[in-house]
This record gives sequence, C-alpha cells and structure tokens, in this order.
Amino acid sequence: MTEISQTLDPALIDRFVAIVGDKYALRDPQDIAPFLVERRGLWHGATSLVLRPGSVDEVCRIMRLATETGTPVVPQSGNTGLVGAQVPDRSGREIILSLSRLNRIREIDLLSNTVTVEAGVILQTLQEAADAAGRLFPLSLAAQGSCQLGGNLSSNAGGTGVLAYGNARELCLGVEVVLPTGEVFDDLRKLKKDNTGYDLKDLFVGAEGTLGVITAAVLKLFPKPKGREVAFAGLSSPEAALSLFGLAMDRAGASLTAFELIGKRPYDFTLKHAQGVTRPLAEDWPWYVLMQVSSGRSEEDGKALVEEVLSAALEQGIVGDAVIAASLAQADAFWNFREVLPESQKPEGASIKHDISVPISSIPEFIGKAAGAVASVIPAARVVCFGHMGDGNLHYNISRPEDAEDEAFLGLYHAMNKAVHDVVRSFHGSISAEHGIGQLKRDELIATAPPMAIDLMRRVKAAFDPAGIMNPGKVI
Amino acid sequence: MTEISQTLDPALIDRFVAIVGDKYALRDPQDIAPFLVERRGLWHGATSLVLRPGSVDEVCRIMRLATETGTPVVPQSGNTGLVGAQVPDRSGREIILSLSRLNRIREIDLLSNTVTVEAGVILQTLQEAADAAGRLFPLSLAAQGSCQLGGNLSSNAGGTGVLAYGNARELCLGVEVVLPTGEVFDDLRKLKKDNTGYDLKDLFVGAEGTLGVITAAVLKLFPKPKGREVAFAGLSSPEAALSLFGLAMDRAGASLTAFELIGKRPYDFTLKHAQGVTRPLAEDWPWYVLMQVSSGRSEEDGKALVEEVLSAALEQGIVGDAVIAASLAQADAFWNFREVLPESQKPEGASIKHDISVPISSIPEFIGKAAGAVASVIPAARVVCFGHMGDGNLHYNISRPEDAEDEAFLGLYHAMNKAVHDVVRSFHGSISAEHGIGQLKRDELIATAPPMAIDLMRRVKAAFDPAGIMNPGKVI
Repeated sequence: MTEISQTLDPALIDRFVAIVGDKYALRDPQDIAPFLVERRGLWHGATSLVLRPGSVDEVCRIMRLATETGTPVVPQSGNTGLVGAQVPDRSGREIILSLSRLNRIREIDLLSNTVTVEAGVILQTLQEAADAAGRLFPLSLAAQGSCQLGGNLSSNAGGTGVLAYGNARELCLGVEVVLPTGEVFDDLRKLKKDNTGYDLKDLFVGAEGTLGVITAAVLKLFPKPKGREVAFAGLSSPEAALSLFGLAMDRAGASLTAFELIGKRPYDFTLKHAQGVTRPLAEDWPWYVLMQVSSGRSEEDGKALVEEVLSAALEQGIVGDAVIAASLAQADAFWNFREVLPESQKPEGASIKHDISVPISSIPEFIGKAAGAVASVIPAARVVCFGHMGDGNLHYNISRPEDAEDEAFLGLYHAMNKAVHDVVRSFHGSISAEHGIGQLKRDELIATAPPMAIDLMRRVKAAFDPAGIMNPGKVI
Repeated sequence: MTEISQTLDPALIDRFVAIVGDKYALRDPQDIAPFLVERRGLWHGATSLVLRPGSVDEVCRIMRLATETGTPVVPQSGNTGLVGAQVPDRSGREIILSLSRLNRIREIDLLSNTVTVEAGVILQTLQEAADAAGRLFPLSLAAQGSCQLGGNLSSNAGGTGVLAYGNARELCLGVEVVLPTGEVFDDLRKLKKDNTGYDLKDLFVGAEGTLGVITAAVLKLFPKPKGREVAFAGLSSPEAALSLFGLAMDRAGASLTAFELIGKRPYDFTLKHAQGVTRPLAEDWPWYVLMQVSSGRSEEDGKALVEEVLSAALEQGIVGDAVIAASLAQADAFWNFREVLPESQKPEGASIKHDISVPISSIPEFIGKAAGAVASVIPAARVVCFGHMGDGNLHYNISRPEDAEDEAFLGLYHAMNKAVHDVVRSFHGSISAEHGIGQLKRDELIATAPPMAIDLMRRVKAAFDPAGIMNPGKVI
C-alpha cells in the first residue's frame, strides 16, 4: 500500500461521508485499494476516501463541499483508462469520486435513435440494451465488459467502430455535467443540430474529468446491420494495405465498418501465445488486414460486397491471399484473434507502447521511418505494429530484443518514446490517438505541443476550474 | 447609407491600410456599402474601413494592430449569413476583415480523403474541385454559389447533406485560427483520431468569429456515390412521415442521404409562385417528403433500395403516393422544387421565420402544438412548415394572414417568436438549429438559455478574447 504523506481532516471526511451515507463512503484501506491502481500497474495513488454517490444531487453536494474546502476530486468510473487519468496522486489530499452507482439507462428513444445513459453504465450493458431494442451502439473496445460510459466520454474513447460510426465524441449528442462548484450544466439534449452558441459539450467530452464531472449523456443509436462479413487478408506491404483501404472505401464506403492492420510480428506472437486461436490464413505474409463490411440489407448483400472488394484486390495484385469468414463462428474467431493480440505481446517481455495517429496516406511512410528511429535507439528491438488503419491510428509498440533484459530495455523508455513520437510529429500526427493524456503524456504534451495550444487549454482550464480542484495534474 | 456616429482615427486607418496595401483597403463608402448589409436586409452596419488581406500573415498583423489599439474587428467571408453575425454595428468603430482573398484550395489528399482549404473558398468551388478529384464534399446549402468556407465553419453550417454526412463541424478535422492578439493557433491536422487535450477546434467552429478568425481548415472528403435516387412521396400526416423515416433508416441506413419534409402550404406556394417548376405528384396531399438514397455501388442498386423502401411504405399504408425520379433531370427537378421553395414564400407577404430543431420523435407533436401557439397569437396566420426532418430541423415559418397588412403582422414578430420558441423549449429543442445566433437571437439566447450555459460561454469568450475586440455583440 502506498504511503500517505498527508491525510484529510477527519471532520472534513465526516462532512463528505454524510452526503453519500456511511455505506457508500469507503475509508478502509482494503476497500480503497482497487481504486488506487490501474490494470497496467503504472500508477499507485493514495487517498483516505472514496465516495460512491447514488444521485446527481449527491455529486453536486460533493463538489460544492470540495469547492468550499479546496479539496481536489478525482472522478473515476470503470477504472480501465490507460494513461492514469482516473488515479489520484500520492499526496493523500485528493478524494476519489466513483460514478459507478449512477448506472441507469434513463431512456431509449427508438424514433430519435438516441439513448440517455448515466456515467456508471458499463459499455457492454449499453451495447446489449441497444441490441435488445433492435439498435446498434457501435462503440466497441477491449475493456467493454468493465469500462463505463462516463470514462468512455471523458477519454473520448475510440476502438474498432470509429471508422464507420465515429469516436465517443461523435456518438454523443448531449451531456449533463456537474461543475467544480457543484452547479449542473444540463445540456442533455437529443438534437442532431443545435447552433445556439459555443460547443461546450465537446469541451467536456475528452477532458478526462479536469473541467467537470460528466454524470449522464445522450448518445446516438444506429440501425442494426442485417449482414456482417469479416475477412482476413495477407499482403506484402503497408502500401498494399493502403491500396486495399482505398479500394474498399471506394466499393463499400460507409458499409466498411472495420479495417485493422496487423504486422507479421503481432500475428506470430498471437499464434504462439494466445489460447485457442486458429491460424486465419494458411500462408505467412508480411502484413495482414482484418476487414469488416456491414450491410443494412441482408447477409447475402454483405457477402457480395466483401467478395467484390476482395476479388478486385486479388485481381489487381493488392492482396496476396484472403479468407472470408464462412460462418458467424469464424467471423467471431477472426475478431477474437484481433482482440487477444495486444495481450499476446506480454510473454515476449517488456514493451514500450505508442498510441499514435498520422494522416492515413502517410501510414506506409510512417512505418518505414519509425522502424529506422526504433533501430537507432535499440537495433534489435522488435516492432509490434497493429491498429485501426482506417482511422490512421496505429498501436506502434516495441518489444525488447529477444536476448535483452526487461530492465535495461525499459531504461530507454523515454529515448524510445521520443524517437517514435518525433517521427509522428514530423507527419503532423498525434501522440495520443485514442487513449488520452492523463498523467502518462502530460509532460510530453506540454513540452512538445504548439505553445499556443497549451496556452489556450490552460485558459479553458482556468475558466472552468479556477480553484484547480478538478482532477488536478491531469492533461494540462 | 447608414450614418456613422463615430469615425476611426485617420492615422489608425493608415496603419491598417499599410498592412494590406492601398488596393485591398476599401475606404470609399460606395465600395464599402455591400459589406454593410445582408440579403434579408435586416441589418445595416457602419464602418469606414474594409480590409481584404491576401495572406494569413496579413491577418495576423491586422489583429495585432487591432489588439494594440482596441479596434473591434468583424470577420466576413461570403456575407450570406442569416443572423447578422457578419455585419458590424452602427457605431462606425468596427472594421470589417474580409477573408475572400484567402481562396486557395491548398491540398487534396485522396488517400486520406481530406482537403485543406482557405476561409475564402466558395463552397461550390470546393464541391466542384472535390468532384473533379473523384470525391464528394457533401456540405450543400442554398447559398453555396456565394457562401465561403470560413463562414460555413464559423456558423457550423447545416443544409441538406447533414443526415448522412454531418454538419460543418463534423466535416472539419482541423483549423488554422488567427487569435485576437494576432497569434496563430495552428491545428491544421488531417487526423481522424487525436486525444491530446481539450477539443479547441470545435470551439472555433460555430463561434461566429467571436473567438478568433478561422483562416483555413482541413475538411473530410467522401467517396462519390455511384447511384443517386430521388423520390417524392405524398402522406397524410407528420406521424406518417415519421414512420416513413423510421422505415427508410431501417432499410437504407447510411445510404439515406436526404429526408426533407414539406407541408402542403409551402408546396402550394411553390407551385403558384416559382418559375418553371413542375408538380411532383398528380394528387394533393397534406404532407410531402423528398427522399434521397445514395448507393456506393451502382445506379441499379440505389433504385432497388428506394423501391424497396417505398413499396414497403405503400404496403403498410404509410405513404399515399410516391414517384421515383425516372431520370437525372427529374431528380434535379425534385431538388430544384425543394431549393426554390423558401423563396416562394415571399410573394405571399411578410413572414416570421424560425429555424428550430426538436428530437425527431417529437416532430409530429411539435407540429401540432406549434400550430396552436401560432393561432393563439394570430388566428389566421399561415404556417409554412418544411425542413430537414431527418435531422429534427424544421424551418417553421409563418406567413401573414391573406388579408392582413405586412406591418400589423410584423408588429407581432416578438410575440410570435416567443410563442413558437416556447413550444420548442418545451421539447428541449433548439431555437437555432443551423443558422446560428449572431445579432438576431442574441438577446433571446441570453434570456432563455440555462444561465449556466450562458455563464460558461461568457467564460470562454473572456478567456479567448479578453479585450472584447473579436466580433463584439454577437452570440454572447
């Protein structure tokens, strides 16, 4: 357990506890422990109080008291974030505000194609509720069984559905936010068009809890596809993958619902380490693409479309080999291969990860230059490159050399980060495409973003949270 | 010509003129006049200086001098806005900054599907350039022959393409903005995913030039549809139109690229007053829908899809009659009917207009209640209701009673506005779905929006434009 250097005044704790009731105020270090670490184990925070309010009104009262007493508050929902935004610092001065009890799906409106959810609803619960109502909620990511919508919105989550449906921000029509002062900004509207002033909603989405606490949101629903076809293709190069993407966009357009690039190394790691996966393609290729086409009409229609794309690609020599899933089970198996892939890197030893994006047209050149940059830091380091190519987003990870020690490799963490991110910046790319900034990339963001962007962000922060009690030390 | 109550110091004018050169600084009242009025003739501003910079650097120098001297600046591009955001006040203290010479299309990136444009590019020029490059730029609105992208972005323009492709904000990936101080916020990136801090881009989009001057933007391009089918349907009620929308979304999904509702009165006005239109349907109906389906595959495919939707709708009794355009010429004629429709209201005398949105599921109920509200102000007033039903956006206009005088009718302008907008607010709708706030709706926004929203907007304004020189008196 982390040492707490400062503790909260017991009288203050009592005032906070009185708001949510004894049962929902965690003070026992053992109860608190799971809220202080995240799944990568990179951050260990400290606090003597976790509050689990059961209503928006309780959230308001907590924030009012926090403002009155200058108590910093760290909002947390599913605690699956990858950049430490949801973990308090080690001072012991901060309290955790858990949103997980605000877990009602308030309304599904089938004609407006909207759903109104609270921040503590688990993503998968929402996916299932939408499905049961005959609709699709397309946000989909590895942590969906435990992540919650409040965090998805606060981190502007991405995942595999972005290509056709957009990220969390694009899926969100309205928000309900409790401000640092405890006042409510109620913008919980179902409107597809609303030009009445500044776009405040999109400031709160992606702010990682540093401007206010998102307590509920109106999200978009979509018609459920009637046919879904998944294919696995083997290719000779990233250039070929880019050509396949262009061809697929041209033929399938909005029906192209996933386009994932997978390098040979993560493919091999998965075959080697993951339980129960089967080899998608008989032969080995330098690169692979997992592609999904969804048809709003029928299964046959989806099949015809994916066949059209792949036969054109084979004919033009873009694709070396391709398999279309012959059954729902095989389609799920292809997706499972993609989903267990990140974890299959672990048994290969320490790794240094990057969540980057560049213009889609620059992906092949990026991959070439980044390989050179990696080699210049550690010649035998192993690049593990895969990701959402259709969004320009790659998880460009580096595993240690086969014969190296973890510790020696991780000693070059910052040098490796800098080498890869310098290449990203040379393409006007992003050093955090979907995971956010949190604690992990804050210093680097401040050091390398255009000073004017940092200056404007600081002005926004100061305008919304002048006392600096809202998730301090994160993002900016 | 409007009286100028204050004039700018001639020495100051000289300093501004020196930045752009004599040729591009308009000082003659006759040259200036077209910049001081807009096409509805609702506002008449005053100024003694219009600057037409030819580079971003010149824009920076203008804003730097404006900050130094406390000179208010009104940015203007195509001057087609409908809420007076681009027109200066009558004081004579403000100068106009025209963006129209920044009219380069800087780059089209076919693989990333992006285009980088300057603020002065005319929308139709961009549409044509995208088309020539084999792509679709889907923003489409009545003023497209003269409006410019800077204004489209600053007003977050909507139009007929929003249903499938989103409004200007959703089409924009990055912006280049000159701040009030003359510094540049360069966020001109082509990234579909970028979670590096607050969403500043979306603050500038839709801010109507009150936070900074958008000088360029990266916009999304789309594959060109291979088949486009347009149908005109006659229906008995808004409820039936809502059912048709649900059915069309279910069958066509993302291929449904327009769904416009037209009431009997605007339909009849168009037949009566517009030149060269033909009657789309043989029989009369209380309501009409213009529907477009776009196929990424082929003309036959689009036709099959629209036929499937309409035969299901006829079978279920949702639609009374329907015609699918048999040729490109007929499709264009259907669209022309929709495009000349707003103008066809003019010969019927004075009108009071509303650009509102409500949740799509509430449209029938809204139409019922709003009719009652209108009648309670002026019993014989004629409701002219049409709009982008698929976006929940109606142009809910009121023509004066047949036998009334324009002036007496317009005397009830504010009472009518209030009556209609009160109904909008009862549905948590928007009093400006796509036109913005500008001068027209500023007082009403401030008086009726949730005080917290106004407070937050004022904080943003103060943070970005502390001196208040950036298009003052608009929005907030």
